[in-house]
Amino acid sequence: MPRSQTRIASVMEQVRKQIAARAYLPGARLPSVRQQARLSGVSVSTVVEAYERLAAENLIAARPGAGFFVSGPAAPLDLTQLTADKERDIDPLWISRQALEADPQLLKPGCGWLPPSWLYEEGVRKAMRMAARAQSALLTDYASPYGHAELRQFLGRKLAKTGITATADQIMLTESGTQAVDLICRFLLQPGDCVLVDDPCYFNFHALLRAHPVMIVGVPFTPQGPDLTAFAQILQNHAPRLYITNAGIHNPTGVSLTPVVAHQMLKLAEAAGLIIVEDDIFADFETHPAPRLAAYDGLHNVIQIGSFSKTVSAAVRCGYIVARRDWTDSLVDLKIATSFGGGQLASMLLHSALTGSGYRRHMESVRLRLAVAMQTTLEKLAALDILPWHTPQAGMFLWCRLPEGADAARASRACLKEGVVLAPGNAFSQSGSAADFLRFNVSQCNDPAIFSALKRALKQG
Amino acid sequence: MPRSQTRIASVMEQVRKQIAARAYLPGARLPSVRQQARLSGVSVSTVVEAYERLAAENLIAARPGAGFFVSGPAAPLDLTQLTADKERDIDPLWISRQALEADPQLLKPGCGWLPPSWLYEEGVRKAMRMAARAQSALLTDYASPYGHAELRQFLGRKLAKTGITATADQIMLTESGTQAVDLICRFLLQPGDCVLVDDPCYFNFHALLRAHPVMIVGVPFTPQGPDLTAFAQILQNHAPRLYITNAGIHNPTGVSLTPVVAHQMLKLAEAAGLIIVEDDIFADFETHPAPRLAAYDGLHNVIQIGSFSKTVSAAVRCGYIVARRDWTDSLVDLKIATSFGGGQLASMLLHSALTGSGYRRHMESVRLRLAVAMQTTLEKLAALDILPWHTPQAGMFLWCRLPEGADAARASRACLKEGVVLAPGNAFSQSGSAADFLRFNVSQCNDPAIFSALKRALKQG
Repeated sequence: MPRSQTRIASVMEQVRKQIAARAYLPGARLPSVRQQARLSGVSVSTVVEAYERLAAENLIAARPGAGFFVSGPAAPLDLTQLTADKERDIDPLWISRQALEADPQLLKPGCGWLPPSWLYEEGVRKAMRMAARAQSALLTDYASPYGHAELRQFLGRKLAKTGITATADQIMLTESGTQAVDLICRFLLQPGDCVLVDDPCYFNFHALLRAHPVMIVGVPFTPQGPDLTAFAQILQNHAPRLYITNAGIHNPTGVSLTPVVAHQMLKLAEAAGLIIVEDDIFADFETHPAPRLAAYDGLHNVIQIGSFSKTVSAAVRCGYIVARRDWTDSLVDLKIATSFGGGQLASMLLHSALTGSGYRRHMESVRLRLAVAMQTTLEKLAALDILPWHTPQAGMFLWCRLPEGADAARASRACLKEGVVLAPGNAFSQSGSAADFLRFNVSQCNDPAIFSALKRALKQG
Repeated sequence: MPRSQTRIASVMEQVRKQIAARAYLPGARLPSVRQQARLSGVSVSTVVEAYERLAAENLIAARPGAGFFVSGPAAPLDLTQLTADKERDIDPLWISRQALEADPQLLKPGCGWLPPSWLYEEGVRKAMRMAARAQSALLTDYASPYGHAELRQFLGRKLAKTGITATADQIMLTESGTQAVDLICRFLLQPGDCVLVDDPCYFNFHALLRAHPVMIVGVPFTPQGPDLTAFAQILQNHAPRLYITNAGIHNPTGVSLTPVVAHQMLKLAEAAGLIIVEDDIFADFETHPAPRLAAYDGLHNVIQIGSFSKTVSAAVRCGYIVARRDWTDSLVDLKIATSFGGGQLASMLLHSALTGSGYRRHMESVRLRLAVAMQTTLEKLAALDILPWHTPQAGMFLWCRLPEGADAARASRACLKEGVVLAPGNAFSQSGSAADFLRFNVSQCNDPAIFSALKRALKQG
């Protein structure tokens, strides 16, 4: 293919992706030929040709004097069609579905949570026995608009320990941590907005953002946190609206923010009018608490979310949002409109499990088990020449580079045939620059069959 | 104000509403001056003047040669600002929040559910005691992607009784019935799509649709169901994408579809390529089951949703979607992306409560109590000259007209001061044509204080 043809194809592909990602909605005007030429670094005539061909495919349409517009066939939303890379193997939704499948034969070193036996089963059982004797309204009625008052008060006291001061009406309960992020996106984002995620980041952030008509940009992540130079550059180039990141232990890298990086990040964000969502679901895994952006910022432009699915139980779903008071008030309306009342039973059970004396002991034991499992897993992986990019202080994740020449997607495919679900790097990477990475969950790495399957997969590779 | 000024103001108001409803998104092009003149039935010069004034307000901006575009300040979504009528008293979200407030002193004849003591408390307690002894994974692990398998199989058998044949992979569990409708909207709708609701309809449909950038059009509702002539006309004029309606007992009117109306509705919908969402949450209240659109249509263009919040417990949240297989598959992806796994505990408890022998007896008793309460409430209301628009065969709702000259919003305001939460008609009416209607929930009408407060409010009126 001659170079000019390649350039035309590349512009067509860019536009197609933007339309698939709904960054350009049906009926929206495309950038002018001149603008697009600047954006793509090609000549005006290349863009004209690319637009003409897309128009011939009926994907876009020319309106004389007004430019090119996205054609409007009303197709249902298909999140799998929106994957930049068409490989199902690194599609975040495909990986989530594998991990959520209830097949007890599967080994899941790639999944993002503790095995059922590590969770706070004893506390849940005790809470259920107590709840079975609770007063009737708690067992049958809707929750109040903000959610179970005692659990919100408990959260307020817990947040105070990390330096976050929030009144009860700044805390809203949700159905889950994921729903919390989703509600915030629906509340703050408009079509075409730019949203930042870490590169790499928790892969479901990619899936979630595909359900919104936004542009996703990855911020390169270093062992000290976001790359501040790159971050400053991205703020300038893209004027993003929102940055979704982790507080405390970062998923998938296990990195914790330092005070100096947190402070610099916030300064840059404030100057650019950027709102930050800090996902704090791994808080109770920390041994040495990292700084919280929400604490530094005083809940002005930082929103914190969390849930109890990773520490108490994933069967008893409940998440929360902590934000500015005027924002929580609007978020309550949005929650009622889109999911009505919350699960009062789940929040009552969680309140009861969390306030018993057993929860602290449970988490102490989990942290200890994780530290041991982390050491063992590091050794087993080292024997396969799989090395950590960073050695986390705590948590369940190891972000590891495969030996030279190995491909994580290919290894994942081979392992799945042997009943082992891995988490290949590019599912976490917006730029697709982690093809030789895997995320391991050390709590799910006890079975030797995982490492023998991995060994065979790497040999094939 | 001269007539020409009134016409200009009217066009400005129309455009403002469309922008507020996000039917025209920031950056979107407005209809051309000529198109708008046709749409509004005014002259081109009137539209030019209206657009110029809106541009002077910076709400829209002219781009020479390209038309007028919506200006793009990125303000967070505020659902309360989107109310056509600015009166908080008839705002669906305000009413929901009043009804959800946990104040036990409030009397709530306007709320949409049974009092806690009428729900299946005994079944929930029993299920909880059993669940406290369940195997660990059920208490701590995520649910599988489609949701708890046994509950879906149970639903499949239940649906078969109403003539709906659905395999287990056509049934997906959700966090709630409201979330089910919301997921379908996110899956099927694109910005600017037209969505139909009954006029009157369940008021939270209005709130839910405001969270989507769509146009809402009401289909006039008659004691036989939707007005078919008006429906046909609306299909022709608006080419709607989706129609959200009730199966079985209609909220708020208590009307049940007849086979002939169901058949005609479907014929019109099929010819127009319209998808129908049939909300079946009141199924177990029926004494004489009405036809189901999903049964007639064979789940091609009809989707059914439901939940157990009205019959078993609103504290144990779980809903479901029954649809075409290719649609449920995409809906599972969307559910994972936006709320991750479902609440396995809630679905396990519901399965246990629904399959015990007690549930059938519980609902028999509820239907009997409702029939008695319906009779009593009709009499008490008649004494105040408040008369039913239709006398339902079953269910909890009475849609009633107030005496000549009375205003439901004003009466609601007066009653709220006495601790009585009413549901004024215009919260249910897209066209705002139910200012003299109230919806009563007969199960919440036992306290005589309700009727004395109402009497005083109407006297003031």
